[in-house]
Order: sequence, then C-alpha cells, then structure tokens
Amino acid sequence: MLINIGNGILKGLIMELNENERIDDLEYKGLKIIQNKDGFCFGIDSVLLSDFAKEIKNNSKVVDLGTGTGIVSILLCGKTKLSEVIGIEVQKNVAHMAEKSSKLNNLQDRFKVININIKQIDELRMNNSFDAVVTNPPYKKIDSGGKNENKAKLISRHEIEGDLSDFIITAQKLLKENGCLYMVHRPERLAEIIVKLRQRNLEPKKIRFIHSREDSQAKMVLIKAVKGGKEFTEIDKPLIIYKKDGSYSEEILKIYNKEVEK
Amino acid sequence: MLINIGNGILKGLIMELNENERIDDLEYKGLKIIQNKDGFCFGIDSVLLSDFAKEIKNNSKVVDLGTGTGIVSILLCGKTKLSEVIGIEVQKNVAHMAEKSSKLNNLQDRFKVININIKQIDELRMNNSFDAVVTNPPYKKIDSGGKNENKAKLISRHEIEGDLSDFIITAQKLLKENGCLYMVHRPERLAEIIVKLRQRNLEPKKIRFIHSREDSQAKMVLIKAVKGGKEFTEIDKPLIIYKKDGSYSEEILKIYNKEVEK
Repeated sequence: MLINIGNGILKGLIMELNENERIDDLEYKGLKIIQNKDGFCFGIDSVLLSDFAKEIKNNSKVVDLGTGTGIVSILLCGKTKLSEVIGIEVQKNVAHMAEKSSKLNNLQDRFKVININIKQIDELRMNNSFDAVVTNPPYKKIDSGGKNENKAKLISRHEIEGDLSDFIITAQKLLKENGCLYMVHRPERLAEIIVKLRQRNLEPKKIRFIHSREDSQAKMVLIKAVKGGKEFTEIDKPLIIYKKDGSYSEEILKIYNKEVEK
Repeated sequence: MLINIGNGILKGLIMELNENERIDDLEYKGLKIIQNKDGFCFGIDSVLLSDFAKEIKNNSKVVDLGTGTGIVSILLCGKTKLSEVIGIEVQKNVAHMAEKSSKLNNLQDRFKVININIKQIDELRMNNSFDAVVTNPPYKKIDSGGKNENKAKLISRHEIEGDLSDFIITAQKLLKENGCLYMVHRPERLAEIIVKLRQRNLEPKKIRFIHSREDSQAKMVLIKAVKGGKEFTEIDKPLIIYKKDGSYSEEILKIYNKEVEK
C-alpha cells in the first residue's frame, strides 16, 4: 500500500535524498516517509502498532524506542494529538532518514529524533517523564537464523544493539507511573515478554493477537502494559488480516484508511 | 447438550444416587456423568479442555487435578487411549460422585479417584511419574466477588483449598521430564499463569484463546506447558463458540460430536 512518489521533488520542496533512499506516500493524511530501498522497509506491524496505540491521550509525551525510519511516530502524529514524540534510533543513517521524514511532514516540532543506543537512555535525563512508550523492537534473538542480510537490516531485525530486556527496562525507566507501553512482537516470545514485563512492574493489561487468517496461528502480538498497573489482562478480539477469499478484512481496510466495500 | 436420563435406573444397573444427584448423558460414546443439581455442574470449559488434551499419547499415565465430578477424565477416557487417569479431588462427596461415574461408565480400571487436597500430593509418592496432567482449577481468587454460593460451588470456583500456584507446583511435581500440563483458565490471569509456569520450569508451548464470538474478547484460555520444554510459544487459531447468527460454530459442533450441517 505504498506509492513511490519519486526522487524527492515534492510540492516545491527539494529534499536531499541519499543514494537508494526514496519517499513513499503513506496514503494517510498526506503523510510520507523516507526509506532506503536496500534497508529495512516498514511493514504491517508498524501500521498495526500505531493503530493499537492511537488511544494515547491528547498532549501526551511519547517515546518511540528503536524508531527506525520513524514510521510509528509519524503515523501516531497523524492519528493522535500527542504533544511530542521522541524517536530513539541507534543507527546514524537511519536516524537521519527519520529526521528528514519529520521535516518532510512538517512535524519537526512534534517528532524529534535522537541517535543513541537505548541502553544509554540515562544520559538523556528524561526518566519518569513520559505518558507512553511505543516500540517495534528487533524480533529475533542474536543466535537465531536468517542473517544473510546487510547490516542495517540485521540491526533492525536481530537483537544486536539491544535485546528484549533492554527495550523493556528502558521503557520502564522512561514512563511515568501509570504510563503505558505499547509493543508489537512475535507471539512465540510471549512467555518471555510477559515474564520480563512483570519483573519490571509493567503489568500486561491488553493483548491482541494478529492472525493472517481466522484459521491460522497468530503471527504477531500487540501488547499494552501499564507501569504499576493492577493484575488483569484483557485478551482482545483477534485481528484477522485476510478474509477467506484472500482479500483484506474490513478492519485492515479501515486501519489503512481504505474504503470498505458495502 | 445434556439429557437427564433419570434417577439412576440404567441398562439394568441400579446406581445409588444421593439426594439431588442425577445422571446426565454426555452424548459421546455412551458416556454418562453423575452431577449434583445444587452443586457445580460441568461447563463448556471441561469439554474444551478434554478436546485440547486429546493429543495425549496412547498408554499415557495422566492425573486430573481437581477432577470434580470427573468430567474431564471421563471424556479423555473416551477420546484417547490413555492407560490410566487419576483424579484428585478435595471434596469428599464430589470425589465419591466421580468414583460412581467411573463405575457407571465401566471405567474403574482406567479412571481412579483419590480424595485428598492437591497440596498433600507428596504423600502419594507418585512424583515424576506422569505423562500428562490435566486441570480445570478454580478460576477466582479467594478475595474476588460472587460468593453467594453453597460451599461445594465455592470450593470449585474459588481458590479456597488450593490456588493457582498450588496447582502449578503439584503438576510440576507429578510430571515426568517432557510431560505435558493441559490447563483451562480465565484469560485475565494469563500473565500470572505464565510467570508461575516458568518459575516451575513448565514452558508454555501452545496457547489457545476461546471467544464467544469472533468480535468479542477471550473468555477462556487453554494452555499446554511442557516440563523442561524449550522457549517457543505457539498461539493457535482462535476458538470461536458462536457464529454471527448465534448458532454454534462448526468447530464447537464437531467437539460436541454433533452433525455439522452442509
């Protein structure tokens, strides 16, 4: 659902794009994103995470841990009235792309990018000050397969620069009491995620599983955890991507802001 | 889907029933069960648990923790070729009903009932000797509401005689290495369940959520955990009870051994 709208000449603005970078139209409130054709391009998980987190209250201060190209933050700026979202990204060139996307969308006052490793978060002196954290962390353990990729993709997909514990610990540090963490991850790591959240006083309050079809296993999981929240987990209705005939489900069409056929 | 088949006169066998006890036909391979009209009668959760656990291998030795009227064990005797299932039940009169149901179904060589509290399991000297444990434990914490019930129902529904930790600890003791625990519970306690399973080296390997309708939150959860299992949780396709028109889904009809209309 992306349209490549060319090499950076857009509404009279000339954006400096590096080799292999392109601007894609998000087809949502005119938002755009810069991605590297050879790097990690955003997927449905980022779109579903931003939709899952769209309940974020007006004037919230938000952090996006491992923001990558900034896709989740940019969509959240469109879907919510958050006052500020800070994207933390360890890869310098990727962080730079996110920053350019922020400007391209005229979001420089709301979406700011900081190029550091999440493990250095204490240096920013921002702990206990955010209403929400969103994160689409690397899904794969460092020792798991599929590493025939370039370095940028590797870091986006594998726990090379930070693992699940690092993301959860960092989220817990940044959140205010009762602040919310919204995460998308793989269901096969659910047990580990829940144990690590609870070790950090982040109570899983709402979990939603994403299935390709109604008769297939879950392929992704959305988790909302509340810092200092009371015990009680709601398992939301399943999110099904495709109908039996192979077309997108009505919910997916709505999330992508497409017309639903009557 | 129960038919009360009268006051115990069945195929020439005269079963001694106590006041308020009745025999219900399970409409599955001729199996029957004795229940107390004023006590805790089995629900869909027991039926779904026995279906979830029907993968239990031939000749398995099984324990049913908190067997109640024996419903899960009796259905498992019908659905699998297990060699022996031992039902542990703390309530004397309920355990006695389960024993009578075992005889009524001519299962006395396969389904045996022991009337003790699960917390005394060590006294039986059966640790590390079972291939599988099934359990439909009390769902509610002792301090949670809804206690305007008689004592038998209270014990079946609330953690009065044993709590979640007791059930998990006892399962872990009884299972052989690589043995499987099959549990049905409430999804709101998922986080606690997963943390407690992992504390006892029981790895959640397969989880299935049960929803009344495809667009409603989960109301029950089925969990398979393996003693000493490796990390990796499969979230199975959702189990939906009712179709949009309010009739039972095809899967539920199959589980209840009913004809599926074409």
